[in-house]
Parts: sequence; structure tokens; C-alpha cells
Amino acid sequence: MSYKLRCIHCGKVYDPADVKYTCPVCGNRLGTLEVIYDEFPEVEKFDLEHKGIWAFSDFLPVEPNHFEVPLLVGNTPIYEKKELAHELGLSDLYVKDDGRNPTASYKDRASAMAIAKAKELGISTIYCASTGNAASSLSGLAAASQMKSVIFVPSSAPEAKITQLLVYGATVIAVDGSYDEAFDLSMEVGEEFGWYCRNSAVNPYLLEGKKTGAIEAAYQLNWKIPDVAMVSVGDGTVVSSIYKGFSDLKKAKLIDKIPMIIGVQAEGANAVMRTFNSGKFDNPVDIKAHSIADSIAVGKPRDVLKACKYIKKSGGKFISVSDDEIGNAIVELARKTGVFAEPAGATSYAGLKKIKNELKAKSVIIFVTGNGLKDINSVKSFVNKVHTVKPNREEAKEALKDAGAI
Amino acid sequence: MSYKLRCIHCGKVYDPADVKYTCPVCGNRLGTLEVIYDEFPEVEKFDLEHKGIWAFSDFLPVEPNHFEVPLLVGNTPIYEKKELAHELGLSDLYVKDDGRNPTASYKDRASAMAIAKAKELGISTIYCASTGNAASSLSGLAAASQMKSVIFVPSSAPEAKITQLLVYGATVIAVDGSYDEAFDLSMEVGEEFGWYCRNSAVNPYLLEGKKTGAIEAAYQLNWKIPDVAMVSVGDGTVVSSIYKGFSDLKKAKLIDKIPMIIGVQAEGANAVMRTFNSGKFDNPVDIKAHSIADSIAVGKPRDVLKACKYIKKSGGKFISVSDDEIGNAIVELARKTGVFAEPAGATSYAGLKKIKNELKAKSVIIFVTGNGLKDINSVKSFVNKVHTVKPNREEAKEALKDAGAI
Repeated sequence: MSYKLRCIHCGKVYDPADVKYTCPVCGNRLGTLEVIYDEFPEVEKFDLEHKGIWAFSDFLPVEPNHFEVPLLVGNTPIYEKKELAHELGLSDLYVKDDGRNPTASYKDRASAMAIAKAKELGISTIYCASTGNAASSLSGLAAASQMKSVIFVPSSAPEAKITQLLVYGATVIAVDGSYDEAFDLSMEVGEEFGWYCRNSAVNPYLLEGKKTGAIEAAYQLNWKIPDVAMVSVGDGTVVSSIYKGFSDLKKAKLIDKIPMIIGVQAEGANAVMRTFNSGKFDNPVDIKAHSIADSIAVGKPRDVLKACKYIKKSGGKFISVSDDEIGNAIVELARKTGVFAEPAGATSYAGLKKIKNELKAKSVIIFVTGNGLKDINSVKSFVNKVHTVKPNREEAKEALKDAGAI
Repeated sequence: MSYKLRCIHCGKVYDPADVKYTCPVCGNRLGTLEVIYDEFPEVEKFDLEHKGIWAFSDFLPVEPNHFEVPLLVGNTPIYEKKELAHELGLSDLYVKDDGRNPTASYKDRASAMAIAKAKELGISTIYCASTGNAASSLSGLAAASQMKSVIFVPSSAPEAKITQLLVYGATVIAVDGSYDEAFDLSMEVGEEFGWYCRNSAVNPYLLEGKKTGAIEAAYQLNWKIPDVAMVSVGDGTVVSSIYKGFSDLKKAKLIDKIPMIIGVQAEGANAVMRTFNSGKFDNPVDIKAHSIADSIAVGKPRDVLKACKYIKKSGGKFISVSDDEIGNAIVELARKTGVFAEPAGATSYAGLKKIKNELKAKSVIIFVTGNGLKDINSVKSFVNKVHTVKPNREEAKEALKDAGAI
């Protein structure tokens, strides 16, 4: 598809060949770029089953079918939950389970795009700074594509998350410092060696990969768009991508409305919400973040201006939920739908629970952005205990009575 | 589909209404039943994308479309790996990634069937004895179906695995004893309360659910069947199900050959192989099992006669691999394909590596039965170390040189 890049801050339009990642005038923090297309071809049928996100290449800044990753990215299930919708007072509820991606998170949609763009440029090493899903996703998809990945993490990152990167063969540089220092170092070193950058905040194409989550959901729903879309928010790119996906579909006349988009943050990491509520979108509020939802525990969000602008356009807003609400949402979502989410993945459901009265009779889609297997430890304190018995029928029956099972 | 049940030991054929789980004459250990169908209808197109395994209900002992689980089970990707095939001296290599199931293992195929059969009988509680994938799968799919699950585990089971069951709302009874004691207790208690039994070894329908792995792969390959199919083996039901799937397709005249099936066991848990090699299939060898591949660390396999008979019919055999070979297979498979498997999932690949010279120029499919996120700890000792640096470009470059990345 033919496209241009436009600065979200000053509005200047660039030819893709003339800029690298962000607006040279407005800089990394405010001057993130958006990908704008001249026009979309008329397409109605998409081969989601075989191509995953590349079924939507007519909406993406790549040549069709040319730079596919040899793993099936996207084509994740969407579930209609009638009983739960009724229970919450909604007209309809849809759950999009992106924990079913190859490396078990929404981030695979962005990493696939990074690999496609790196291949287009003939670059075989891709880097990022991340402790979490962006890193595992990049290392897994790079391995599948026989490309190299270099991951910069703060040295405090949990061993299990680092192990996954090493399994995929990534080079992992643990930086004895903060996430921000790891980020800055990654940009310096990546730049020096001419590697391709998979830091979501600065690379405009990653959001295009992510927007396939919204496009895919819309297609799966036969273009019948819910009133409200909810998703968790850390840096702000996923929530922006949801808007962008629906917005591009509207431009292509495949849908006629964009849902109200509600971004859900963790209370201890609600920097985007604070900026949004201040009304001064180009003066981002930074905080010291903490939350059990590590994938969205971001203190200095890197794509805040875009997120605020897009969500305002959709008529939506940002809300925040406590770690307790997130933990309970993991358990309730698993029990009511069978979808086991990591903390950041269940944050959308926690948000829905919190404001369900405001959303009465509306149709809602929630995006589950990561699989619960990524972080079993966080949920431990939110579940019941096991019942331990001797191998004896009477003891077992006592325990089953205690548990309310008989 | 209309069907009968036949004892794998004495061959007696039963009407499904007349027996419960196993042959009343031959008992639990040898008298497991097989589901046999009068005929298969002529079907050619299957809606795998929307229905998952239920697309194949014409091959299953259920009424079509009637007892579906509200999670998408199956429809997992199959990858053709040309370069890796070439490297191993094969003509073709296909990797079926069943870690992409709802609870991230092959066992979802069986649990979905258990739920369908329980619903058919009007039973709302399902039980099993398991420490692993069968348990998480049952608890997840039962939650999605708003049914109850009761799981019996040995009290030594790892906390993380138990946490997942509790998240889904299962009642977990930890038995202060061995797996065998937990198994026997589950059967006693389950029987007393009339709950439905999801113990793979005794329930013949579970294998029918599992066989959809083979049917699905065959369909995805446009009925072009590889020469050899390899899968890991613990109790013996999954490997039997692979045979059964291909065998039913051959009866339905959709394919014209059954691949040679090679079952791969862990060296420390190779009871099925020992029985097979002894030639006395109805005199199962029991051992004390140990392996990092916990999902197949079975000392007293419960479906060994069927496994031996089926694999012999296919012209195949059983082999075994060491824990080191399994650990290295996880890493190599992840790096060469992007598919991150749990130890039992990578065991098929470890087996392929071991006997690749025997399989020269053949086409091979390997089944990856579980996702690596289920067991990060086992693989820790098989990966490189991270490189820790101060947030400083020169130190980072030194580390990158050390790692061979620059």
C-alpha cells in the first residue's frame, strides 16, 4: 500500500524515505508519526485462517504477501459471551483472546510488522528495550524468521522472562539501571550498528501491526461494530492502534462507526490517564509506576500524545483500576469464560466491571492482550487453597464438603 | 455418528449404553475400549476456522454441532519447514503446534470431548487425576462451559500448576500419596457421586477427541499424508489417537495411507517402549519414572496395549531420548522454528534428531503437544547467560562482542 507519515504533534507530512522513526522537528517524545494511506482498495474477503494478520495487507504499509513471518500471527478467537453480557447489564459482550498468538501476546502483531519492515530494508538484526511481551515476541518471531534479535533489559527483570528470550536465541544485554536507561542505551547502540528498532513508541509501523487486532475483530464480527472497545494501557500504543484499526476501516467504508474506546490503566501506573484528564496532551505527566500488571507498569509513557488524541476523537476516555481489581478480574474472567489472562490482559475486564453501570445496554468488546501462563505468580494470592487429604475416601469426602463440591 | 465400543484385549463389541468406560471382562488395565463406526459420511469441506475440532464431528461419537465447548479447541497451526527438513536430510518436515490450544496443550482436544459426553449424559461435574495438562485443560474448558471440575493431584505437584487449576475455579484435592493413589481415589469418589470421568486411560471417548490432531493435520495438508508421524508418549493415548485419526480417515477414503508412527519417550520413563520391545503387549512393564518432561513421566502407563497394537499396525515403533536431548531440543526447535515447546512437546523433535539418519528422504510430521510457557524452569540450564553491563555504550559493545552479536 502507498502511504505517508504524519507527525502527530505538528502535522507535517513526510515521505517514508525521508524520515526514520519520529518527526525530526518535534522529537521522540511528542513527535511520533502516524501512517496515512492515500486510499484503500475495495476488498471484502480476507483469508484470516491461512494468513493471520497478513490477510489485511491492503491496510498495511507493506507489499502484499511479501514479507510474511513464518508463524501464524493473529487469527485469534473472538468469543460472544451472552450470559456474562446479561449479568453485566450489557446488550452484547465480545472477548478477543490475543493470548492465543505465537508467543502468547498482542505484541506479536507489532513484532511481525517490525520483521517485515526490517526485511524490506535488508536489515537482519532487530533490537528493543523491554522486560516483557515485546521482547519475547520479537525474539520468537525473529527466530522463526532466522533473523537476529538483541534485547536490552533492566537487570532487575525476572529470570523466567529472560529465560524465554534466551531459549529463542536472543542476545540479552542486562543493563544495571532503570528501564529508561536500558531504553536510551538500546537506541544509541542500535543506531550505531544500523539495526532495526522495535521500540513501539518511536517506530510508527508497529502501531500498524497492532491495529490488525481491531481490524480482525471487526471482520470476525461481520463488520458489526460494538459501541465500546476496552483495552489495557501502558505506553499507549495498543490503545491507539485499536482506534487506528477502526478508523482505517471506516475510511475504507467497510464499517460506519468507530466505537468509543476506553483505555484501562493500573492505578499505580496511570500516567496516560493523568495526562488525558489534565487536557494538556502535549505536556505528558510522568510518574513512578508500580502494579502487578507488569506489562503496563509504565511511568514514562512514550506514545501519550497520540493515545490522548485518538481516544478523545473516539469519544472515549481513560480509567484506572487497582491491583486487587486486576487480580480478581483474572480469576473471574477465567471462571466465566475459560480465558486465562495475564494481569495486563485482564485489566480490560477489570475496567469493564468498574464502569458497567455507565455502559448499560451497550455492546462491548474487551481485548485480552496476554496469556495468564506468562505470569502465574501474580494471581496466587487471589485464589482459594487446595484441600490436602490422606488417600482415603472419607477424608476426600470431608474435603469436598468443605470446598462446597458435594 | 453411530458407533460401537470394542475391547482392545478380547475384541468383544459393546453397545455404548451397555458399558461405562472399560471392558467388564478384561478390566481397567488391559480392557480399554476403542470406538468403532459403522461408516463415515462423504464430506470434503470442514469449517476448521470457526468450529475447531467440531468441524470433524462426522468422525466423532457426538451429534454434530450439539455439544460444543465455548472455546476454540484445535485449529492450531501447522508449519512446513523446508530449510530444517533439508538440514535433517528429510524430504519434508511439518510441525503441528498444539501449544496454541486454549489452555496451551494437546489435551484440550480430549477435555472438549469429555465435556460433550458429560453434557450428553446430563452430568455437570467432571473429575480427573492429573498433575498437568489434562487437569488444566479440564478445569479451563469446564469453566468455559459453566460446569464443575474436581481434580485429584499428588500433594507433591508444583504450586504453579495447581494455581492455574484454582484460577479456573476447580476444586483441587491434594492427595498425600503417589499419583497412582490419587488416581484410584479419584475413581472411587467419582463413581460414588456419579461424576463424569476424564481419566484418559479408561474413557474411550477421550482418544476420539485427541484423534482430531491427526485429522486436522491431514486436512491442513490437503490429505497429502507424510511418511512418518512422531509424537511424545507417556500413558500412550495421544500416540494411539494419532493412529486412530489417520485410520478413520483411511476408512472414510479421504486418505490412502497411514503414516509410520513413532512414539518418543523419555529415557527415564520408557515403560511403553519396554512393553513394545518385549513383544508381550498384554503384560505391561511398570517402572519408577523420572524425567524433566513431566507431562510424559509415567511409570505405569494406562493405555499401553492399545498403543502397542496401533503403533505396530502402522509399521512404527517406540524410541527414547535423554533429558539432555529433550532440553536441547526445546532450544533448537525454538531457534529454528519459533515454536517454544514444553519438554514433552519438544520430545518428538528430540526423537527426530536422534533417528534422522534412518528417516532419510522421508516426509515427517512432528506433533508439539504443549507450550513452553507451561514449564520455563526446566529449560533454564540449557540456555546461555545474559550479559550484564552498566548503562554505558562501550560496556554494551564489549558485551555484544562477547556474545558474538557484533
